[in-house]
Amino acid sequence: MVARLKFYGWGREGEGLDADERAALFRFVADRFGIEARTVEAPREADITLRASRLTAPAALADVLTAEPYERLLHTYGKSFPETVRAFAGDFANAPDLVARPRTEAEVAAVLDFAATAAAAVIPFGAGSSVVGGVEPRVGDTWRGTISLDTRRLDSILEVDRTSRAARIQAGILGPALDAGLKPHSMTLRHFPQSYEYSTLGGWIVTRSGGHYATLATHIDEFVESLRLVSPAGVMETRRLPGSGAGPSPDRLVIGSEGALGIVTEAWMRLQDRPRFRGGAVFGFPDLGAAAVAVRAVAQAGLYPTNLRAIDNAEAGTYGVNAFEETLVILGFESADHPVDAWMARAAELLADHGGRRHADEAAAMRWRTAFIRMPYNRELTVPLGLINDTFETAITWERFDAFHAAILAATNAAIVEATGVAGTVSTRFTHVYPDGPAPYYTFNARGASGPQGAKRRIEQWTHVKAAASDAIIAHGGTITHHHAVGRDHMPWYRQQRPALFATALAGAKAAFDPGGILNPGVLVP
Amino acid sequence: MVARLKFYGWGREGEGLDADERAALFRFVADRFGIEARTVEAPREADITLRASRLTAPAALADVLTAEPYERLLHTYGKSFPETVRAFAGDFANAPDLVARPRTEAEVAAVLDFAATAAAAVIPFGAGSSVVGGVEPRVGDTWRGTISLDTRRLDSILEVDRTSRAARIQAGILGPALDAGLKPHSMTLRHFPQSYEYSTLGGWIVTRSGGHYATLATHIDEFVESLRLVSPAGVMETRRLPGSGAGPSPDRLVIGSEGALGIVTEAWMRLQDRPRFRGGAVFGFPDLGAAAVAVRAVAQAGLYPTNLRAIDNAEAGTYGVNAFEETLVILGFESADHPVDAWMARAAELLADHGGRRHADEAAAMRWRTAFIRMPYNRELTVPLGLINDTFETAITWERFDAFHAAILAATNAAIVEATGVAGTVSTRFTHVYPDGPAPYYTFNARGASGPQGAKRRIEQWTHVKAAASDAIIAHGGTITHHHAVGRDHMPWYRQQRPALFATALAGAKAAFDPGGILNPGVLVP
Repeated sequence: MVARLKFYGWGREGEGLDADERAALFRFVADRFGIEARTVEAPREADITLRASRLTAPAALADVLTAEPYERLLHTYGKSFPETVRAFAGDFANAPDLVARPRTEAEVAAVLDFAATAAAAVIPFGAGSSVVGGVEPRVGDTWRGTISLDTRRLDSILEVDRTSRAARIQAGILGPALDAGLKPHSMTLRHFPQSYEYSTLGGWIVTRSGGHYATLATHIDEFVESLRLVSPAGVMETRRLPGSGAGPSPDRLVIGSEGALGIVTEAWMRLQDRPRFRGGAVFGFPDLGAAAVAVRAVAQAGLYPTNLRAIDNAEAGTYGVNAFEETLVILGFESADHPVDAWMARAAELLADHGGRRHADEAAAMRWRTAFIRMPYNRELTVPLGLINDTFETAITWERFDAFHAAILAATNAAIVEATGVAGTVSTRFTHVYPDGPAPYYTFNARGASGPQGAKRRIEQWTHVKAAASDAIIAHGGTITHHHAVGRDHMPWYRQQRPALFATALAGAKAAFDPGGILNPGVLVP
Repeated sequence: MVARLKFYGWGREGEGLDADERAALFRFVADRFGIEARTVEAPREADITLRASRLTAPAALADVLTAEPYERLLHTYGKSFPETVRAFAGDFANAPDLVARPRTEAEVAAVLDFAATAAAAVIPFGAGSSVVGGVEPRVGDTWRGTISLDTRRLDSILEVDRTSRAARIQAGILGPALDAGLKPHSMTLRHFPQSYEYSTLGGWIVTRSGGHYATLATHIDEFVESLRLVSPAGVMETRRLPGSGAGPSPDRLVIGSEGALGIVTEAWMRLQDRPRFRGGAVFGFPDLGAAAVAVRAVAQAGLYPTNLRAIDNAEAGTYGVNAFEETLVILGFESADHPVDAWMARAAELLADHGGRRHADEAAAMRWRTAFIRMPYNRELTVPLGLINDTFETAITWERFDAFHAAILAATNAAIVEATGVAGTVSTRFTHVYPDGPAPYYTFNARGASGPQGAKRRIEQWTHVKAAASDAIIAHGGTITHHHAVGRDHMPWYRQQRPALFATALAGAKAAFDPGGILNPGVLVP
C-alpha cells in the first residue's frame, strides 16, 4: 500500500527532505534572506471547509466519480508557487465538484457525456505536477460544476514491440512504473523530466514535456509514434508510422493541446535500448556568457551529447556545488550500442578549446543532480517561511541570447525589488541546447510579505515578478514556455506569442473535438 | 539567360539524357518489354489549343498575372506519369486561366484578393515538381476560373544568422540557388530531395519533403525554425524559436498543408555547416529481407549515418549496378566537425555482423547515385514509347515490414498483369530509415497499351495499378505517402488514413485561413 499523494505539496505523504537537506535549505533562506527557519504543520483535511459539491454522480458512474474530500483537495491544485501558498492558506475555493477516476476508455467517454449533460467543465489531471495553473478548476461561473478527470487508473503497458522498439502504453502511467514495465524488455522511454516520479505519460504528451537529456530527442514530441484521444465528439486514433508526409501531422495537433481537445488515453511510444556505455565530465567557465559560446560549439558539432547543461555561477553556488566562482558545464554521453570515447573526446576538446577548465572529478555534477531531483520537495518548507520561489523557462536563438539574458535578469531583479523592497536571487541554467539556441531556465527567490495578510500579498508580489519576467521574455523574442506548458498562468503571454490566425485555427479545430467547449476551459483557447 | 522549364517534362528546354544514358534506358525497355525504341518529338506550344482564359487580370496586377500560352501550359501539370501522358497527348483542358508570378508578399495578397472577388480558385505552384497531382488546376466546375500562383520570383535569401546557423529565405527559391547563396557563409540547408534542382523551399515545406539523407533530420519539418504565410484571412508569422512547449506547434500545422491554408512566402530555416569529413562503404546482402535486419541494427544504434540506403536486387539490377544478384546497402557518414572513423567502424561492423559483404570499392554507390539524379529525365522518353512507369513510397514499422512488403509486391505485380496482360517489374529501396521502421520506395514498370486510344488506356492501366498498390498500403498499415505528398491523386487513400476527427479539425482550421475555400480546392480538405 503506497501512501497518498499530498494535496498541498510534492510527492506522497511522509516523503520530503531529510534532516541534512532541510538544514541546508534553511541555511540558504537564513543566510540570504534573514528568515528564521521554523517548521510549519502541513494543512490538514479536517481543517478545510469545502463548498458542497454542485454535481451528483449518476448511479452508472458511481465507481468512477467521487466527491470524497481528499480527492477534491488533491485535484484542486498543481504544484505551482501560488497554488502552494493558497493550499497552505486553506483556500480550496476552486475545488472540483467531482473527481473522475476512469479505468477504461469507455468510462472516460461516459464521464465526458455526463459532463456535457450536466453543463460541467472537465479538467484533465494526470498526476497534478503542473506548475502553470494547468489543472486548477478555475473556470469562471458559467459552468454548473467542475470535474477533475484523473487518468492514473489507465496505467498499463498494453503491448511491447521489441523489433520496432515501441510500446502501446496507457496515458495515466507514472514515470517509474513505465520504466519498470519496460525494463524486462531491456528498453526504456528514456524520458526523465524533473517531475518524472509524479507525472504521467499523457501529461507529458499534452504539455510537450522536456526530458532530462540536453540534445536530440528530448521533447516528448519526438517519441510519440501514434496516439488515441477521447473527445466529446468521439475517439481519434492515429496510425503507427515511423514517418509520414500525408498532410499536417495529426499527432502534432494533439501534442501540446493541454487537454483542450480531448483526453489522451494511450499512445504508441518510441523506445530506446537501455544505455550500457557512459562518459561524463564537468568543466568550469568564468561566466554563463563564456560557457554559452562553448556549449554552442558542441551543440553545433553533430555529436548529440545526452547532457550538456550549463549552470551559472549563482545557481551552482545556491546548490552548494562551488563557491559562486564559476559556471559549470556538465557534459555526458550515453549509448546502448558502443563506447562513447570518440564522442566524449571531441566534445571535451571543443569545451577546452573554448576556455573550459576540466574538473578532476565529476562530484559537482552528482551533487547538482541530487539537489535537482529533490528540489520539488523544498516548496512545502519555504512557502510557510514566506519565501517567494519560482522558476520559469524559455528558448531563444543563440545570436540573441546575450541581450535576451541580460534583459530577463534585469527585469526579474528589478521586479523583485519593486514587489518586495529587497533584492532577491536570480540564477540560470541551460536545460536543453539546440543547434540554433539554448533553453535557459531561471530560478528566483525573494523575501515575501509576512503577517496576517502575508499569503495574499505574497501572491501579489509573485504575480508582479512573474509578469515582469514574462513581459521581458515576449518582448525579447523568447517563448513563454519551453516545456512547462501554458496552463492558465501563461495565457496572457501565450496570447501575445501565438499568431492571431493560429488562434482562430486552433479554435476551429477545438470546435471539432469539443463542440461544447467543456474541456479545460480557459486553457489555450480562446 | 537560362532556358525555360519544359511544360511537358523534367528540367529546362534542351536538357535531358545524354546519348549513353538514352541508349541504356532504351536497352532496358527493349530487353524487358520488347518495346522498340524511337524518338518522339516533344509537344509543341503551337500545336496545342488552349481554352480562352475565363479571367481578366485587373490593371493593377498587369505585371503579376499573365495569360501567356507558355505560362498556362507550364502551370497545367506537375511531373507525374498520367500528367506527362496527357501532356504528350496534347490534353491541356485544365490549364489555368491566369498565372500569377508575384514579386512581393503584397502582390501575393493582391492575387488572393483578386481571386476571391473573381470567384477563382488559386493553385499554389513552386517549380511544378509534384508527382501526385498537387498543382493541376483540376477543381471542378464551381469556380469561375483558376489561377496558378507561381512563387519563383520570391527567390532571395533575406538574412543570414551565422551564430544560430539559420537564414530567412523566400519560399520561391530553387535548391541550387539556395545552396549557392549560403555557400559564402560556409553553410548549407543540406536538404537534397531528388527534385532539388527544380523544386522550391516553399514547396518542400508544404509537402513535407524528404531529403537525401537517411536518418535524423531528413524531412524538411525539422529544419523550419519559423515561417510566414499569406492567406485570404491575412498574414501569419511564427516566432523564431529553437524549441517551444507553448501549445501545439503553429509551424507543424502549416508544414504539409499543401497550399490549402495559405502561401508560404518565407521561412527561417535551420542550417548546417558544410561537411568536410566523409566516410562511405557499400555492402551486399542476399535479399532485401536480410538487408532490412542489418539496416535496422544500424538505425537503432544511435549512430545517425547520413546514408543508409538499401537497394533491392531488382532495383540494383535495373540501374546497372550489378547483375540482380544482391541487395546493396550504401552506408555513409558526413561531418563538418570531426573525422567519422569511429562512426563508420561501428556501423560497418554492425552491417558485417548481420551478414553484409563489404564491397572493395564504392563505385556501385556512385553509379546508382548518378542514375538516381538523372531519373526524372527518363519520363519524356518512356511515355511516348508506351511504357508505364511510376514510383510510390510509404513508411511502416519494422515488425510489420516483411508481411507489408510481400503484400505490396503481390498487389502491385498482380495489378500490372490485370491491367496490361503481361508482367512488369517492381523494385524497392529504402530511402529513409528510422529507429522504428523504414520508408520503402517502390518503382514499377509495365508495358502499356499502344494505338490510337493508347494514352487514355495507359492512364486507366496506371490508375488500376496505382489503386491496387495504394489499397495494399492502407490495408497493411502504411502511410499513403512518406514524402511525395497527398495532392489530388492520393486523396481517396488519405481520406482512409486520416482520422475522421482530424479531418473535421483540419477543415475547421482551413475555415480560419481560407474562409472562401479558394486555396487548392480538393487537396487535403474536405
